[in-house]
Amino acid sequence: MTLMDTRVDDGYPTRITGTPERLPRVHPTVWGTEADGPIDAATLANHDAKGYTVVEGLLSPGEVQTYWQDLVRMSSGDGLADDERVITEARTGEVRSIFDVHETSELIAELVRDPRVLDRARQILGSEVYIHQSRVNYMPGFKGTGFYWHSDFETWHAEDGMPAPRAVSCSIALTDNYVFNGGLMVMPGSQRTFVQCVGETPDQNYKSSLKDQRVGVPSEDDITAMAAEHSIDQFTGAAGSALWFDSNIMHGSSNNITPYPRSNIFLVFNSVENALQEPYAASAPRPSFIAGRNSTPITR
Amino acid sequence: MTLMDTRVDDGYPTRITGTPERLPRVHPTVWGTEADGPIDAATLANHDAKGYTVVEGLLSPGEVQTYWQDLVRMSSGDGLADDERVITEARTGEVRSIFDVHETSELIAELVRDPRVLDRARQILGSEVYIHQSRVNYMPGFKGTGFYWHSDFETWHAEDGMPAPRAVSCSIALTDNYVFNGGLMVMPGSQRTFVQCVGETPDQNYKSSLKDQRVGVPSEDDITAMAAEHSIDQFTGAAGSALWFDSNIMHGSSNNITPYPRSNIFLVFNSVENALQEPYAASAPRPSFIAGRNSTPITR
Repeated sequence: MTLMDTRVDDGYPTRITGTPERLPRVHPTVWGTEADGPIDAATLANHDAKGYTVVEGLLSPGEVQTYWQDLVRMSSGDGLADDERVITEARTGEVRSIFDVHETSELIAELVRDPRVLDRARQILGSEVYIHQSRVNYMPGFKGTGFYWHSDFETWHAEDGMPAPRAVSCSIALTDNYVFNGGLMVMPGSQRTFVQCVGETPDQNYKSSLKDQRVGVPSEDDITAMAAEHSIDQFTGAAGSALWFDSNIMHGSSNNITPYPRSNIFLVFNSVENALQEPYAASAPRPSFIAGRNSTPITR
Repeated sequence: MTLMDTRVDDGYPTRITGTPERLPRVHPTVWGTEADGPIDAATLANHDAKGYTVVEGLLSPGEVQTYWQDLVRMSSGDGLADDERVITEARTGEVRSIFDVHETSELIAELVRDPRVLDRARQILGSEVYIHQSRVNYMPGFKGTGFYWHSDFETWHAEDGMPAPRAVSCSIALTDNYVFNGGLMVMPGSQRTFVQCVGETPDQNYKSSLKDQRVGVPSEDDITAMAAEHSIDQFTGAAGSALWFDSNIMHGSSNNITPYPRSNIFLVFNSVENALQEPYAASAPRPSFIAGRNSTPITR
């Protein structure tokens, strides 16, 4: 199959000119069954319907401490400012995210292979998996800025060449998530709809979009329609809880003026049967620390 | 008593240089008793402890509609941009607040005299009352910006010359308040502490502070200590519900990226025994549309 064929067959056209449409998703949300892993049938059905699943206490309080110390260590190293894998807050210069942590932190490399994590990823995606993206996020208190509404898959498809939404994200809270400190908001069921975004992708868009996304953002009309149809749920929970969410779910977060920072480990698993192609709507693929191109299956 | 005496006796010094302190409040929160009005003893005791009270369904759904139409009418009039009583969003120019609405809207003038409102204000303050400030607030969806942590009384004392925190605010929701559309966050019990703020008040500070407050803001250390002691509650409720809150309670709000706007009517009642003096920490008082100087008691 040539690149041209891929584009012709593309069920998820985006970064278009003209009026955006809301397209039905071509692919399933849940690809495995109860027999394939630790998630029971009812929870799988719920994930299929809503596009997300909360697992309370995925990490123990002791593990949370260990990972927290690892995050502090990583955020305070020398030479961070020069490392392209470190994203700083646009306004203040503070560390906001560190990418590729499954390659640079032994602890997170272990976590990726932990059966509590890996077996759930395999089960939801119905195949062997690999890491598309890993990062730790740090939203400081008082001035943490949120993220506007978006679908991750829209970007991964357009800019990374991910063919189908056969990827799932696991966000593990390292701090308590309250309703008021900028926790993730999701529109349950929105993963069934692909919302086209308007606008050509600028070269090296990722350098600004990781701080403040301006392309790959749905229209206000589409956000209003999606919220009216699906409503909004907000992820709250104690440190150690995990949110598994579909790559195409519409989500965003508010800013955080409370004194309580919000930190999490963010792991994106992609199916090995969904390896990246050429970008569907960008001139060049993003760097591999943002979009991994080694689709070798993770093994224990 | 001369101005000098007032300043010497001032139990709430603020806009200081040096290290701010957290001072115990000199005055009561609740000044009346169960016999004085419609609020029962338990609710009054709760208001005294927490500094706020929620009254569900203070306005009926039909009344909410009527007031909403009044707000739309007021926000779309001619010559608004030239009216100093109309505050626009710093970034977008959209109407954010309209002040002095009890003087310009007949409906709101009636609301101020409505026994559901007036009798509660009189009871909490234990005296006849007048309007210190009235406004309608409009926080649009998608891009509504919040307000950082502050005590209203700190500003009213410093810039308006309000002697004591014997004032109470009534915020009546005209839209549903969810946890995620920028609803008011309060620190319950924080009204018992006066948090000094650092910095001299610039001339005509109100022209920028109504959009984005930079003076009269507590330190991050003080916000952290107050949140640790008092925690944070967030006001949610259907349109028509009212939040009564003490003039000195620490409060703030996040931004609003949801499609759901948040609008409310905001009425500040002051005791006629607490009429404004010269500002305690500003070179000139703010205009009367922000801080009313006619302390004639409101009558039905």
